[in-house]
Amino acid sequence: MRTPKPQIAHFTSPLYLDSGRILEPFELAYETYGTLNTDKSNAILVAHAFSGSHHAAGIYEGENKAGWWNDLIGSGKGIDTDHFFVICINALGSCYGSTCALSPQNQGAIPYRLKFPVITIPDIVRSQKVLLASLGIDKLKAVIGGSMGGMIALSFAKLYPKCAEHIIALATTHATSDYVIAVHKIMCDAITKDPRFKAGNYLISELAELPLAGLALARMIGYLQYLSPRAMQRKFNHRYVDSDGLYELFGRFEVSRYLDYNAQSFCRYFDPLCYLYLAKALCIYDLSLGHENLEDATKEFHSCIHLIAFSDDTMFPPYEMWRIKQALQYNNKPHTFHEVQSQTGHDSFLVEVPLFEHYIKHILAA
Amino acid sequence: MRTPKPQIAHFTSPLYLDSGRILEPFELAYETYGTLNTDKSNAILVAHAFSGSHHAAGIYEGENKAGWWNDLIGSGKGIDTDHFFVICINALGSCYGSTCALSPQNQGAIPYRLKFPVITIPDIVRSQKVLLASLGIDKLKAVIGGSMGGMIALSFAKLYPKCAEHIIALATTHATSDYVIAVHKIMCDAITKDPRFKAGNYLISELAELPLAGLALARMIGYLQYLSPRAMQRKFNHRYVDSDGLYELFGRFEVSRYLDYNAQSFCRYFDPLCYLYLAKALCIYDLSLGHENLEDATKEFHSCIHLIAFSDDTMFPPYEMWRIKQALQYNNKPHTFHEVQSQTGHDSFLVEVPLFEHYIKHILAA
Repeated sequence: MRTPKPQIAHFTSPLYLDSGRILEPFELAYETYGTLNTDKSNAILVAHAFSGSHHAAGIYEGENKAGWWNDLIGSGKGIDTDHFFVICINALGSCYGSTCALSPQNQGAIPYRLKFPVITIPDIVRSQKVLLASLGIDKLKAVIGGSMGGMIALSFAKLYPKCAEHIIALATTHATSDYVIAVHKIMCDAITKDPRFKAGNYLISELAELPLAGLALARMIGYLQYLSPRAMQRKFNHRYVDSDGLYELFGRFEVSRYLDYNAQSFCRYFDPLCYLYLAKALCIYDLSLGHENLEDATKEFHSCIHLIAFSDDTMFPPYEMWRIKQALQYNNKPHTFHEVQSQTGHDSFLVEVPLFEHYIKHILAA
Repeated sequence: MRTPKPQIAHFTSPLYLDSGRILEPFELAYETYGTLNTDKSNAILVAHAFSGSHHAAGIYEGENKAGWWNDLIGSGKGIDTDHFFVICINALGSCYGSTCALSPQNQGAIPYRLKFPVITIPDIVRSQKVLLASLGIDKLKAVIGGSMGGMIALSFAKLYPKCAEHIIALATTHATSDYVIAVHKIMCDAITKDPRFKAGNYLISELAELPLAGLALARMIGYLQYLSPRAMQRKFNHRYVDSDGLYELFGRFEVSRYLDYNAQSFCRYFDPLCYLYLAKALCIYDLSLGHENLEDATKEFHSCIHLIAFSDDTMFPPYEMWRIKQALQYNNKPHTFHEVQSQTGHDSFLVEVPLFEHYIKHILAA
């Protein structure tokens, strides 16, 4: 694959948000892989998860780390860039180049911060549809995403029923559970109670001024959901960083060191305000909003819906995805459901690609 | 039941700790229910969980809230105080009257704080054995406890194999998993990163000076383990505190309000330093420590071991308790194992007493 090149699309038309507010102008950062064919019929939209970005595949020049779904997207891979034109867009509200709480308001120089409007998953979908239209793409082969990306994919099926042939949603849900809402409430508290948060008015350009203690806590709380208990046990097996530290109050287990390391590296690139806004979008996500129930909410679905759940996902357990299957079945909508046996937990959709890529390959070959 | 009366036992003999340090003198707060018979053969030791106290049953004068296991302990109840003399001791290191990090060191006036020694579950057991001896009790009908209390009960079986006829351990494990270690690492970080923590030198007498933001976060992280996701869903069902707040960044769901309320009330009585010390004790708990494996660690067990696990306990899942059963089976040790079908999660041992009290009644009647 060629070196991916992030791009920024600038839109001057207003984006009408679920909250009643308007975003105007707005920008979206995105990346593409593969080549759009002449009749523009081979495009696949990939939607990223909470902390992801538009950098889904390939390796930037001078870097070592590949995009977050590099195992799945590429020449000859599950999403084959020899056949498909893949586009991944940084979600509105995220901190990788799309309009977010750090963006200047009213085309001035002062960032929105807490004046940024609440963004919903449908808002993210609408903004991405605008970008697709600007590229002349009005039909998609598929929309694919895991976790929050799965919410985006399912919301796409609801907002634009005839736009995508296939919707592939992994490790996600029809409505965020109270448990996951509780997790995000605590994460957000960790950030806002950090004295450096200063009601969102922290100095963005100074690392030492950011509420990173809170952000690190939030990220670590996330890890409790992303990795399954069994995966942690396999990985760390009670090992102590320094066996002499067993009887020292602050002696550390390997799992603690792992959490520290990962939280610190997360803090180098993620923004606390964006964390709050994305958490809000995730928490108020509910496909049934404005409908009697999920059956009613899915009755206009037209795409073929493919649901891939992971057996030990504690964040979005298979029974929540099964609920979507029930609603689709009730409405006689075309769908498939796969429960992948995994031992990695929620993160399986990112790190256990060999366990499910054949499903995706098969769907896209149809 | 008569109004329970908390008592303090003072010991001047040294307590030799696993860390190599010595606690001298030390105190233990405790409560008793029922009457010790003349041959002192009807005593039952009840061990409390992480945030529990010696106030296991009855209601203090002028208060409304009963002890934490009031559903189980009392006249005619699962642990029948008409027949048994029940004693519950505040764990060493906890903040309800037993010696802890807030106690004065060297009989002076200055509290230990971070100079307090690391306490282990076996240390807690040894201290409780000293108290039992001081009451002239050298044989117990049973040791019963859930969660951390279950660790105490199982460690009792290991340290004093011939002391208790029955050991009843609920919702617990043979060794704290990396997942639970991770949970407690984040809780402890929340406390120590609170600027008010001041390396443990916060002003104890001033509520406004305590690192309560961190302690509240820690408690909320705990709730993610104590209640099962399904229990949260049943309890809150996506309800919003104020439906107008759906599109406000800090609008709250009912589950968030519940977490806030409970964390705030927890902060009124629990101490941050004690939290750290008990978390440490819980994290380094491992029945196999100093042994080849769990089979080796349990080979001298002599009490009849009763294991009661809860189907949806995500903190100490049934398969961890099953591991204890395997080891006991391997050694031909008398034991029973029950997996209670519950939908409340880890807290089932506290709030779902009707689901398991018949097991306990049956064991004690034998």
